[in-house]
Amino acid sequence: MKKILLATTALVGFAGAASAEVSISGYAEMGIAGGNRGADTQFWTDANVTFSMSGTTDGGLTFGAKVDLDSIPGNVGPGLTQGGETMYISGSFGKITMGDTDGALDWAAQEIYMGTAIADDHSSHAGAYWNSGLDGTAGGQIARYEYSFGSFAAAVSAEIDTSIANNDVFGVGVKYSGDFGGTKVGFGLGYQDNSVQSMYAVTANATMSNGIVINVGYADLDAQAVGAKDTWAGIGVGYTSGALLVAANYGSYDVLGGPTVDGWGLVANYDLGGGAVVMAGYGTSSNVPVTPAGNEIGGLYGSDDTFSVGLGLSF
Amino acid sequence: MKKILLATTALVGFAGAASAEVSISGYAEMGIAGGNRGADTQFWTDANVTFSMSGTTDGGLTFGAKVDLDSIPGNVGPGLTQGGETMYISGSFGKITMGDTDGALDWAAQEIYMGTAIADDHSSHAGAYWNSGLDGTAGGQIARYEYSFGSFAAAVSAEIDTSIANNDVFGVGVKYSGDFGGTKVGFGLGYQDNSVQSMYAVTANATMSNGIVINVGYADLDAQAVGAKDTWAGIGVGYTSGALLVAANYGSYDVLGGPTVDGWGLVANYDLGGGAVVMAGYGTSSNVPVTPAGNEIGGLYGSDDTFSVGLGLSF
Amino acid sequence: MKKILLATTALVGFAGAASAEVSISGYAEMGIAGGNRGADTQFWTDANVTFSMSGTTDGGLTFGAKVDLDSIPGNVGPGLTQGGETMYISGSFGKITMGDTDGALDWAAQEIYMGTAIADDHSSHAGAYWNSGLDGTAGGQIARYEYSFGSFAAAVSAEIDTSIANNDVFGVGVKYSGDFGGTKVGFGLGYQDNSVQSMYAVTANATMSNGIVINVGYADLDAQAVGAKDTWAGIGVGYTSGALLVAANYGSYDVLGGPTVDGWGLVANYDLGGGAVVMAGYGTSSNVPVTPAGNEIGGLYGSDDTFSVGLGLSF
Repeated sequence: MKKILLATTALVGFAGAASAEVSISGYAEMGIAGGNRGADTQFWTDANVTFSMSGTTDGGLTFGAKVDLDSIPGNVGPGLTQGGETMYISGSFGKITMGDTDGALDWAAQEIYMGTAIADDHSSHAGAYWNSGLDGTAGGQIARYEYSFGSFAAAVSAEIDTSIANNDVFGVGVKYSGDFGGTKVGFGLGYQDNSVQSMYAVTANATMSNGIVINVGYADLDAQAVGAKDTWAGIGVGYTSGALLVAANYGSYDVLGGPTVDGWGLVANYDLGGGAVVMAGYGTSSNVPVTPAGNEIGGLYGSDDTFSVGLGLSF
Repeated sequence: MKKILLATTALVGFAGAASAEVSISGYAEMGIAGGNRGADTQFWTDANVTFSMSGTTDGGLTFGAKVDLDSIPGNVGPGLTQGGETMYISGSFGKITMGDTDGALDWAAQEIYMGTAIADDHSSHAGAYWNSGLDGTAGGQIARYEYSFGSFAAAVSAEIDTSIANNDVFGVGVKYSGDFGGTKVGFGLGYQDNSVQSMYAVTANATMSNGIVINVGYADLDAQAVGAKDTWAGIGVGYTSGALLVAANYGSYDVLGGPTVDGWGLVANYDLGGGAVVMAGYGTSSNVPVTPAGNEIGGLYGSDDTFSVGLGLSF
Repeated sequence: MKKILLATTALVGFAGAASAEVSISGYAEMGIAGGNRGADTQFWTDANVTFSMSGTTDGGLTFGAKVDLDSIPGNVGPGLTQGGETMYISGSFGKITMGDTDGALDWAAQEIYMGTAIADDHSSHAGAYWNSGLDGTAGGQIARYEYSFGSFAAAVSAEIDTSIANNDVFGVGVKYSGDFGGTKVGFGLGYQDNSVQSMYAVTANATMSNGIVINVGYADLDAQAVGAKDTWAGIGVGYTSGALLVAANYGSYDVLGGPTVDGWGLVANYDLGGGAVVMAGYGTSSNVPVTPAGNEIGGLYGSDDTFSVGLGLSF
């Protein structure tokens, strides 16, 4: 009594009459994760299912939504509280996306990270930054409008603060992608403001025909208090050859009135085909606040490193 | 590696051999919601996925179940605690439905509301009533048996109280639908009793060939204490023309030893086709208990109004 | 706008190109459950959806994952915390399974229970044992490697304790299945140790051509304190004839410094076809600790019995 869902390509021929559809994909991880996590090397297992919905209006607008099996159940405040879902409507006017989506800064700025590790060690060390800007500081319900023109695209975004402080977040971003003699080049610039803080990020990346990728990023985080992060700079370099991807990255924060916090990461992915990828990741951090079980060195600041090895499985 | 599920019509030809099946549908909302909610006008986003299962026994009985992605995870008391699921078995004997389903009163009585708003403003003002009767007063695990004969259908229902009070809820309902010279007419009558309270509801509706629909309802809520709601009466009027639906409703509660609590609602839906509908809703309430941030007028009783505008997306 | 997923057989012809797929199955229960549960006879309803994912690497390894709709949402500690998911990779080297899966003891030992009841009364009385061994005593993240050779299969398993006690669980199991003149025979032997406790279980079963099945089991539970369970022995006998299965079982625990705790169960299943099964179960227990509302007889130890009747629906 099991129902099998087939790959897209096998069924496209029958889809002509479908006005709206739900597509299902899955992802699972199995392996081990260790290092100075404050615990032993442990088994790491995770699985998730994603529901991607799409449709088209009679007038040709496309729309859709996405939600995960492990999203927060919507029982509490389904509409006004963010639970992990996104939805969009798109047409010649551009595209509006709402929900748990990137603000315009994050949309415009490209991450410096390549490859995946089951515990994301390479991209979650103390020097890592994901261009999150001010996203999530006002409840996480984001609306973003984007528009493309040639090699350029631009976006504006908003996140409404319903607290008495009323610190609504507004953002703007622009990005460019082009090709210079076989090298694909991209630039991104994003800015966000919530009337208390203003942040910006600028990123650049180059993908060469020999398989080498270089990503760089810089962000002004506008520290408001001693101990807060003020600026960030990072670089990621990767190389792909056949089924193999190897990448390294380094990132560093300047902290107001404190020591620099930085870290670097390494990742290797080997694609076994059919959706299975062998993944190994390593991350190391300096000057992270010391907790009793989580660090090698005592004192006010220590260092930390973590690793994971396993399989990432896509369905 | 995505799997696409097709619309029903595209696949019916292959379904002959299927003895049991799971069908998947999705719904999402995006827009803004505001008014006197005690907060700013905010973004409203929500998405859900519904799993509808059905099968047929060798003897020709049909059965099925329905559960949502945002149902309460069943880990705690899966069988005895209600988590949002329903299931049924049906045959020439009638149909038995169990779980998070309507008691016989709600099954028989028709709502006065038409159309949908993303925040349901038009149907959730202080004067709104959904014929819920005593449903949910004893844990929410309901069993209902229904049977149809010609233009009539009848149902009985039970909800077992496992507390020491032992106030089991029993219900009975009957409804009629017919056609008088092109006007479709329906009547509903439902009654519930839990040995402390007894409630009844009576509803009537007419759908005219010119697109006008009129729904009326009355309920005796059998107030047991000062401040409780004693009776309710409401009317809803709607008009459909092509892709457009507009509707208005008014409802009013008599409160034991207190002022009348009433409200009215407006809703407009415009169908863009393909599953996308533009939705606007408005609701206003009088004599709702005043909370500091949620009302316009100070004092013991105030008024309240809310609105929402956005897209409802079905997949 | 509903999407129907078809039965496996209907779509196999199209599946050739699919490299990875998600199959969906559902299960629901409806009925009543009663007895000395400390409450009235109540309605019992439950529904769940299971996502089974599978794929094949270019080199011919098969892999997959399984997760339920009512698994614990993965938001908290998705990788290191067990939320109900399992995943595997399999090839000529054997099979590695991780997550919420059986340790080697439980994998090798066969349960004595046959049939299903909606509330599992027949297999959850005070004398029931499920060969769980030490599974779950160290967080529940289990890794198991298994290998088959002819009529034999063997497995080893581990569960890492990340607490300061460091009581990692290791297990080993072996099982055999064969056919002696039309009677299918199986044996299982499993052992687990966490450096504080060591447990073993041994089971045997015979399935005769006349429809009778006999299962027996014995487990040494290595009680560490007065009041703990030290050994268990049980027997289950079933008979299948056409659509009908009836089965009975008895199990008994020796308790260190306390009375024997035992119970027996009865179950009957009648298959209506198409995925619907009528299920009746009964279980009775002796010498369970007395709680005010849950027992017939006062005093330090009493007895307990429960029953359930309903439908199990598979989709």
